[in-house]
Order: sequence, then C-alpha cells, then structure tokens
Amino acid sequence: MRQRIYNLISTSIFSLIFVSVSLAQSAFNVVPLGVKGGGAEGNLSAYMIAPVNSQAYVCLDGGTVRQGVEVAVANGAFAATADQVSRSFIKGFLISHAHLDHVSGMITNAPEDTSKFIYAFPKCLEIIKNHYFNWESWPNFGSEGVNPLKKYTYKPLSEGQEIPLENTEMTLKTFSLSHGNPYEGAAFLIQTHGKQALYFGDTGPDEIEKSTRLQKVWEAIAPLIKAKTLTGIFLEVSYPNEQPDNKLFGHLTPNWIMKEMNNLAALAGKENMRDLKLIITHIKPTGQNEVIIKGQLSDNNALGLQIVYPEQGTAFEL
Amino acid sequence: MRQRIYNLISTSIFSLIFVSVSLAQSAFNVVPLGVKGGGAEGNLSAYMIAPVNSQAYVCLDGGTVRQGVEVAVANGAFAATADQVSRSFIKGFLISHAHLDHVSGMITNAPEDTSKFIYAFPKCLEIIKNHYFNWESWPNFGSEGVNPLKKYTYKPLSEGQEIPLENTEMTLKTFSLSHGNPYEGAAFLIQTHGKQALYFGDTGPDEIEKSTRLQKVWEAIAPLIKAKTLTGIFLEVSYPNEQPDNKLFGHLTPNWIMKEMNNLAALAGKENMRDLKLIITHIKPTGQNEVIIKGQLSDNNALGLQIVYPEQGTAFEL
Repeated sequence: MRQRIYNLISTSIFSLIFVSVSLAQSAFNVVPLGVKGGGAEGNLSAYMIAPVNSQAYVCLDGGTVRQGVEVAVANGAFAATADQVSRSFIKGFLISHAHLDHVSGMITNAPEDTSKFIYAFPKCLEIIKNHYFNWESWPNFGSEGVNPLKKYTYKPLSEGQEIPLENTEMTLKTFSLSHGNPYEGAAFLIQTHGKQALYFGDTGPDEIEKSTRLQKVWEAIAPLIKAKTLTGIFLEVSYPNEQPDNKLFGHLTPNWIMKEMNNLAALAGKENMRDLKLIITHIKPTGQNEVIIKGQLSDNNALGLQIVYPEQGTAFEL
Repeated sequence: MRQRIYNLISTSIFSLIFVSVSLAQSAFNVVPLGVKGGGAEGNLSAYMIAPVNSQAYVCLDGGTVRQGVEVAVANGAFAATADQVSRSFIKGFLISHAHLDHVSGMITNAPEDTSKFIYAFPKCLEIIKNHYFNWESWPNFGSEGVNPLKKYTYKPLSEGQEIPLENTEMTLKTFSLSHGNPYEGAAFLIQTHGKQALYFGDTGPDEIEKSTRLQKVWEAIAPLIKAKTLTGIFLEVSYPNEQPDNKLFGHLTPNWIMKEMNNLAALAGKENMRDLKLIITHIKPTGQNEVIIKGQLSDNNALGLQIVYPEQGTAFEL
C-alpha cells in the first residue's frame, strides 16, 4: 500500500513536471508548406506559424502554398479542408524578399484567396508591385499599382519596430539582412505571450557579405536566449561546405551557419545555446546535397544545438 | 498445314497493318512536366515534345520543370537521370505567354541549367526580361537587360514565320492568341518530317475575346487535318461550364472548346475530325472541377474527338 501511494505520488510529480515542461516548450505551432531552396517547384520556402491552440496563422514567405496545404491536410495537420486552411487560417504573408522561389505560390494562388496582408520591407513590396502584381506577370491582386484589385494589402515594415500581426495574437519585429550585397532580405521575430520564434529569409554570412547585419540580430536576440524565451531559429543552409565562398550568392553553408552560431553564443552564453532549436531551411536539393549537408551539420555541432529538418506538411511545435 | 500457313499469313498481315498504323500515328513523343492551371505549384503547364526516337526536345511553356522531370524519370519515361533530362534533353523553351504559372519553373531552375533558347513573341520576352530575369525577381540568366548572364538566348518570334527549333529536328510556326483582350498569347505549330502537333497557350473564345485569332488558326490548320498530318491539338479548358462568360478571364470551358472545335470542323470537314486527338490542358483544380470538366467534355463530344487528359510524368505519343 505504501509502495502504491509512493508510485502514485511519484507519477503525479512526473506528470506535473512533464506538463509544465511541455507548456514551457510549446508557444507556437508551425506547419511547413515548403522547405527547399532553388527549383523544387512544389516545395519552396513557406512556413505557417500561429500560437499553439490558435487557428490564426501567418505564413513566413510564400514559395509554395497550395501543394503544402494539401500535404498538411492529408497528414492530419489541420481539422479542416485545404481551401479553409488557405483562405481562412492564413491571415497574412510575411515576405523576407521577393526572389521568385519565396513568393511564387502566394502569387499564383491569389485568384482563389481571401483578403490578406502582405508584410515586407518597402523595397520588397516595390518588387512585388512592379514585377508580379502588375497585369503582365499576373493580375494585380495588390493594394497599389495599376488598377489594383485590392485583395492583398501591403504593409511596409520598418526595421526594429514592433507591430501587431493583424487578426492574430502575434506581434512582429523585423531585421534587415544582406542576401548578396546589396540585395536586402529580412528576418522576422514573431512574439506571442512572451515567447518568440525567429525566421530568417535567405542570407549570407557577415564576413562574405561585408556586413554587420547578422551580428546586429545576434545582439538583439541574445537576451531572449538567456531568458529562455526564444523557442527556435529558422535559418538557411543552401549549399554544402564544398561551395566556394565566392559562389555563395548570399547563402550559408554548414560551416558558415556554425560560425554565425558561435558569434551568437559569444553573446548569449554557450551554456544557453544547448538544445536551442535550429530549424534548417532552404537546402537546395541538387544531387546528394541534402544528405551531405545533414552530415556536415551533425559533425560540426559542438554547441549541442537541437537541429530540426522541417518536412512539407508535417506540423511541429516550438 | 493449310490452316497453319493461313494463320501465319494472316498474323503477318495483321502485324504489318499494326506496324504501319503505329508508324503513321507516332510522329512525336510527349512528356508532360505539368498539366494544371492556377495554383498547383508542382504541376503547372509544361510539355516536353520531340520527334519519336529523338532525345532533342523543346519544352512547351515552363510552369513546372524539375518536379515534372523527376516524376517522369521515376515513371521510366527516360533512360536518364533528372539532371541529364533537364540539362541535356531540353534544347529550348517555347513560352506562350509570361503569366507566372507558365514560366515559374523555367525561371527558378535556371541556375542549374545549361544554355538554351527561349522562343516567344517580343512582348512576352519583354515581360520575361523586365519582370523576371532582372536581378530583383531573379538573377538575369537572359541574353538581354541589366548585366545579363547570357545562359538563355531570347529568340523573338514573328507570327506565321516558320523557323527551325535549334538543335532539334523540328520547326516552329507561331500564331497570336487573345488571352483576356488585349493580353497576347501564342499557339505553337511544331512540325517534324511532314507531321505536326499544335499547342495552345491560354486563350479565350473568339466570341468573348472580340477576336478572330482562333478562327485564323482554324483556317491555317484545316488543310493539315484534311491531309491527316496533324497528330494532335493541345488546348486549354480552365473552368467548367458554370463559369459565367464575363468571368472567363481569357480561358475556355467545355462548351466553348466544343464550339471552337465545331468552327474548326466547318473548315476541316466533320468526317476528318473523328479521332483527332484533343489534349486537354490547364484545368484549374479547384474543388471538383476536374471531374466536372471531364464529364462535360464527354457529354458534349458529338464530333467524336479523341480526348486525352495528360498526366504529369506520363509519356505519350502523337
């Protein structure tokens, strides 16, 4: 009997610890709609993110939308149809930069979509306005430019300013990145109830880009890592280490991402980096690159980061 | 013994007829890389075509390239790797118009591609040059514009002029189409060894477009149908019959395609239309539209056309 009471108590304590750890870990639900860089037309960068237990998402980049939502629905990631997810659950797109592999799904799916916001830096919105929603590449579903259909409302971002993400329980703070100097990219810090997730669009390393933009991001987020409120970092690795530095085209390799993680660790404390979730995005699926990159990251993870490889349509929590 | 000789002779005659019919029917090999309209990112309009027994293809539109080639290779459509097919077998892209769902795969796959030609009307090439290969939407892999990398050479087309398709055994003659007046599309008449295949990009019906462009195509190809040298027509049906005429946006429905086929039959002779292959492209896969469109085409086929629904990565002969 004593043993039984002891078991009951210890099980309860274990359950309590487990529940509180789970609660502590799960601030966001993420549904990747597309995870690759380059030419994999049906699986290009796009990640739905919402607070856990909310159906009000934003989509981080919009490379692949429809195919990703269909795979996610087939996987049981949503208790809804693909049309409901695309039209009702996604409240806005956050576009890191206007290269075609980050926007094509959003553009081609606009005709059947509902009204939404597009958040991006002004230069990025100019490219979307001038080169996609212009009646030549596609009908103008934007809120500006020639004869706008005004389905998508452009929301220009200012670096460092925290703004609400409309119709969601999240806020957004944006950092400027260098993606093949002088081409500008963006990183998005999403916050809900005191927890954050950080999503990077394409970026090269500071040393190659002759830039301090990544360093500025590390300075801004180091306190969040120390406070254990940053739940994860989405960051790109496009090429294996064999890619020469003069042919990075504004991208990272396993070596370069780990150099940058060490720069971050110098500010945040190595002891706080262990188990930080690093979600690897934008692998260009040429030849055996996916396998090679995963091996190189695993071999070079002295910091003990928790490396995550997202898959199209497979939800995970942060 | 007499019976055995009789059997042998009749089998031989049957084989000869079969072989000659096969030879008569097979002028082209077609490998669809993408077959749908609208937002199905990994399955958008693109069709590889070459003379049978040739590996020198052109690609009709370039909505989806990589994913289509991968599916085709997995299906055994080629005795080669996906990289070999994309880089070596495709000698050029024929672009009917520059809407994103007809070019996005070609654009995003350019970095890993080899030198090729892009054939299109001058207005279409201007859109590709100004809005895609411009260093803002994508690096400039074209042969003109700002700092061109000159991987793809632009070949401007003139209506009605027959030109060789470089590095292939085919020639090309192009017709201007109306795709939401005044937006221009194109139809491509491909010829090899006296046989032809006709591919249409997006187009609305003449009556709605206030145009005579389809009628002009019918006049040009009627003699080929009479002569039994036209092997097939690729033509779009984007919406079911329920789509109102004032919301066609330069597209066809089953009713409208059959009205146009009747216009063609009036010139070519109804008796010559039976068994003409009509390859249906660009169905927008919203809701149950694919099933509905197939039913409506089947119910409205008094001409006895041989209706073909291409599938991504499944080769067929014409």
